[in-house]
Amino acid sequence: MIKVSVLYPNGNDKTFDMDYYCNTHAPMVAELLGDALKDAAVDKGLGGGAPGSPAPYAGMGNMYFNSLEEFEKAFGPHAEKIMEDLPNFTNIRPIIQISEVMILR
Amino acid sequence: MIKVSVLYPNGNDKTFDMDYYCNTHAPMVAELLGDALKDAAVDKGLGGGAPGSPAPYAGMGNMYFNSLEEFEKAFGPHAEKIMEDLPNFTNIRPIIQISEVMILR
Repeated sequence: MIKVSVLYPNGNDKTFDMDYYCNTHAPMVAELLGDALKDAAVDKGLGGGAPGSPAPYAGMGNMYFNSLEEFEKAFGPHAEKIMEDLPNFTNIRPIIQISEVMILR
Repeated sequence: MIKVSVLYPNGNDKTFDMDYYCNTHAPMVAELLGDALKDAAVDKGLGGGAPGSPAPYAGMGNMYFNSLEEFEKAFGPHAEKIMEDLPNFTNIRPIIQISEVMILR
Protein backbone atom coordinates (compact mmCIF):
# COMPACT_ATOMS: atom_id res chain seq x y z
CA MET A 1 0.00 0.00 0.00
CA ILE A 2 1.16 3.52 -0.86
CA LYS A 3 0.78 6.50 1.46
CA VAL A 4 0.92 10.03 0.15
CA SER A 5 1.66 12.51 2.94
CA VAL A 6 1.19 16.26 2.58
CA LEU A 7 3.01 18.03 5.39
CA TYR A 8 2.63 21.74 6.16
CA PRO A 9 5.74 23.01 8.01
CA ASN A 10 4.95 25.50 10.75
CA GLY A 11 6.51 28.94 11.10
CA ASN A 12 6.01 32.37 12.61
CA ASP A 13 4.32 33.90 9.57
CA LYS A 14 2.48 30.75 8.58
CA THR A 15 -1.29 30.40 8.57
CA PHE A 16 -3.41 27.26 8.30
CA ASP A 17 -7.21 27.12 8.45
CA MET A 18 -7.86 23.63 9.86
CA ASP A 19 -11.65 24.00 9.61
CA TYR A 20 -11.47 24.73 5.89
CA TYR A 21 -8.95 21.94 5.42
CA CYS A 22 -11.13 19.31 7.13
CA ASN A 23 -14.55 20.48 5.96
CA THR A 24 -13.91 21.79 2.45
CA HIS A 25 -10.50 20.82 1.06
CA ALA A 26 -10.31 17.19 2.23
CA PRO A 27 -13.86 16.31 1.08
CA MET A 28 -13.19 17.93 -2.32
CA VAL A 29 -9.97 15.94 -2.75
CA ALA A 30 -11.71 12.72 -1.67
CA GLU A 31 -14.48 13.25 -4.23
CA LEU A 32 -12.01 13.99 -7.03
CA LEU A 33 -9.88 10.93 -6.27
CA GLY A 34 -12.89 8.62 -6.05
CA ASP A 35 -12.49 4.90 -5.43
CA ALA A 36 -8.69 5.04 -5.87
CA LEU A 37 -8.48 6.66 -2.44
CA LYS A 38 -8.55 3.73 -0.05
CA ASP A 39 -8.13 5.60 3.22
CA ALA A 40 -7.41 9.14 4.41
CA ALA A 41 -6.47 10.92 7.61
CA VAL A 42 -5.88 14.49 8.75
CA ASP A 43 -3.61 15.42 11.66
CA LYS A 44 -3.57 18.76 13.47
CA GLY A 45 -0.22 19.77 14.97
CA LEU A 46 -0.29 20.11 18.77
CA GLY A 47 3.37 20.18 19.74
CA GLY A 48 6.89 18.87 19.27
CA GLY A 49 8.99 16.35 21.13
CA ALA A 50 10.16 18.72 23.87
CA PRO A 51 7.50 19.75 26.42
CA GLY A 52 5.90 23.04 25.39
CA SER A 53 7.64 23.20 22.00
CA PRO A 54 5.62 24.18 18.92
CA ALA A 55 4.43 21.57 16.42
CA PRO A 56 6.91 21.20 13.54
CA TYR A 57 3.94 20.88 11.17
CA ALA A 58 0.69 22.86 11.35
CA GLY A 59 -1.09 19.93 9.76
CA MET A 60 -0.61 16.75 7.79
CA GLY A 61 -2.86 15.07 5.26
CA ASN A 62 -2.43 11.36 4.56
CA MET A 63 -3.91 9.48 1.62
CA TYR A 64 -3.68 5.75 0.96
CA PHE A 65 -3.72 4.01 -2.43
CA ASN A 66 -3.24 0.44 -3.59
CA SER A 67 -0.28 1.40 -5.78
CA LEU A 68 1.74 4.30 -7.11
CA GLU A 69 0.11 3.79 -10.51
CA GLU A 70 -3.40 4.10 -9.06
CA PHE A 71 -2.40 7.26 -7.19
CA GLU A 72 -0.90 8.89 -10.28
CA LYS A 73 -3.86 7.94 -12.46
CA ALA A 74 -6.34 9.34 -9.93
CA PHE A 75 -4.38 12.44 -8.90
CA GLY A 76 -2.89 13.61 -12.21
CA PRO A 77 -6.06 14.87 -13.90
CA HIS A 78 -7.05 16.83 -10.77
CA ALA A 79 -3.64 18.03 -9.55
CA GLU A 80 -4.11 21.59 -10.78
CA LYS A 81 -7.58 21.99 -9.25
CA ILE A 82 -6.38 20.56 -5.92
CA MET A 83 -3.26 22.75 -5.77
CA GLU A 84 -5.27 25.86 -6.70
CA ASP A 85 -7.31 25.40 -3.51
CA LEU A 86 -4.28 25.67 -1.20
CA PRO A 87 -4.27 29.51 -0.92
CA ASN A 88 -7.83 29.22 0.41
CA PHE A 89 -6.57 27.73 3.68
CA THR A 90 -2.81 28.27 3.98
CA ASN A 91 0.25 30.26 2.93
CA ILE A 92 2.50 27.24 3.56
CA ARG A 93 4.14 25.41 0.68
CA PRO A 94 3.64 21.74 1.61
CA ILE A 95 6.19 18.94 1.59
CA ILE A 96 4.94 15.92 -0.32
CA GLN A 97 6.18 12.45 0.60
CA ILE A 98 5.30 9.18 -1.11
CA SER A 99 5.85 6.18 1.15
CA GLU A 100 5.40 2.45 1.14
CA VAL A 101 3.42 1.31 4.17
CA MET A 102 5.65 -1.27 5.88
CA ILE A 103 3.67 -1.83 9.07
CA LEU A 104 0.00 -0.97 9.66
CA ARG A 105 -1.52 -2.68 12.65
CA MET B 1 -6.96 10.45 19.54
CA ILE B 2 -3.33 11.52 19.63
CA LYS B 3 -0.77 10.65 16.96
CA VAL B 4 2.93 10.80 17.69
CA SER B 5 4.96 10.96 14.47
CA VAL B 6 8.69 10.36 14.32
CA LEU B 7 10.06 11.64 11.01
CA TYR B 8 13.57 10.92 9.74
CA PRO B 9 14.60 13.66 7.24
CA ASN B 10 16.60 12.32 4.31
CA GLY B 11 19.98 13.63 3.17
CA ASN B 12 23.10 12.70 1.25
CA ASP B 13 25.06 11.43 4.25
CA LYS B 14 22.06 9.94 6.02
CA THR B 15 21.61 6.24 6.67
CA PHE B 16 18.51 4.36 7.77
CA ASP B 17 18.23 0.58 8.26
CA MET B 18 14.55 -0.09 7.53
CA ASP B 19 14.84 -3.80 8.31
CA TYR B 20 16.16 -3.10 11.81
CA TYR B 21 13.57 -0.38 12.29
CA CYS B 22 10.64 -2.66 11.38
CA ASN B 23 11.88 -5.92 12.89
CA THR B 24 13.75 -4.82 16.01
CA HIS B 25 13.12 -1.18 16.96
CA ALA B 26 9.35 -0.99 16.34
CA PRO B 27 8.58 -4.26 18.18
CA MET B 28 10.75 -3.16 21.13
CA VAL B 29 8.92 0.18 21.34
CA ALA B 30 5.53 -1.53 21.07
CA GLU B 31 6.38 -3.89 23.91
CA LEU B 32 7.64 -1.07 26.14
CA LEU B 33 4.55 1.09 25.51
CA GLY B 34 2.16 -1.79 26.14
CA ASP B 35 -1.61 -1.29 26.04
CA ALA B 36 -1.30 2.49 25.86
CA LEU B 37 -0.23 2.11 22.23
CA LYS B 38 -3.52 1.81 20.36
CA ASP B 39 -2.18 1.62 16.82
CA ALA B 40 1.14 1.96 15.00
CA ALA B 41 2.41 2.32 11.45
CA VAL B 42 5.76 2.52 9.70
CA ASP B 43 6.28 4.27 6.35
CA LYS B 44 9.29 3.85 4.07
CA GLY B 45 10.12 6.86 1.91
CA LEU B 46 9.85 6.19 -1.83
CA GLY B 47 9.86 9.66 -3.38
CA GLY B 48 8.75 13.26 -3.29
CA GLY B 49 6.02 15.17 -5.06
CA ALA B 50 7.94 15.80 -8.28
CA PRO B 51 8.47 12.71 -10.49
CA GLY B 52 11.86 11.12 -9.73
CA SER B 53 12.59 13.35 -6.74
CA PRO B 54 14.00 11.78 -3.55
CA ALA B 55 11.79 11.14 -0.53
CA PRO B 56 11.97 14.05 1.94
CA TYR B 57 11.95 11.51 4.77
CA ALA B 58 13.77 8.16 4.82
CA GLY B 59 11.10 6.80 7.11
CA MET B 60 8.28 7.75 9.43
CA GLY B 61 6.98 6.02 12.52
CA ASN B 62 3.45 6.73 13.72
CA MET B 63 2.02 5.82 17.10
CA TYR B 64 -1.54 6.36 18.29
CA PHE B 65 -2.71 6.94 21.86
CA ASN B 66 -6.03 7.77 23.48
CA SER B 67 -4.67 10.97 24.99
CA LEU B 68 -1.53 13.04 25.50
CA GLU B 69 -1.53 11.98 29.15
CA GLU B 70 -1.57 8.27 28.27
CA PHE B 71 1.29 8.80 25.80
CA GLU B 72 3.43 10.68 28.32
CA LYS B 73 2.75 8.13 31.07
CA ALA B 74 3.67 5.22 28.78
CA PHE B 75 6.62 6.82 26.99
CA GLY B 76 8.34 8.76 29.78
CA PRO B 77 9.78 5.81 31.74
CA HIS B 78 11.17 4.26 28.54
CA ALA B 79 12.25 7.37 26.63
CA GLU B 80 15.94 6.91 27.35
CA LYS B 81 15.99 3.24 26.36
CA ILE B 82 14.10 3.98 23.15
CA MET B 83 16.31 6.92 22.16
CA GLU B 84 19.47 4.91 22.90
CA ASP B 85 18.45 2.43 20.20
CA LEU B 86 18.45 5.05 17.41
CA PRO B 87 22.19 4.81 16.56
CA ASN B 88 21.59 1.10 15.87
CA PHE B 89 19.64 1.93 12.72
CA THR B 90 20.19 5.57 11.73
CA ASN B 91 22.42 8.64 11.95
CA ILE B 92 19.40 10.90 11.45
CA ARG B 93 18.11 13.10 14.26
CA PRO B 94 14.34 12.64 14.00
CA ILE B 95 11.65 15.29 14.06
CA ILE B 96 8.92 14.52 16.59
CA GLN B 97 5.40 15.78 16.04
CA ILE B 98 2.42 15.35 18.33
CA SER B 99 -0.89 15.71 16.51
CA GLU B 100 -4.57 15.46 17.15
CA VAL B 101 -6.24 13.11 14.70
CA MET B 102 -8.99 15.17 13.07
CA ILE B 103 -10.13 12.76 10.38
CA LEU B 104 -9.51 9.01 10.24
CA ARG B 105 -11.74 7.19 7.81
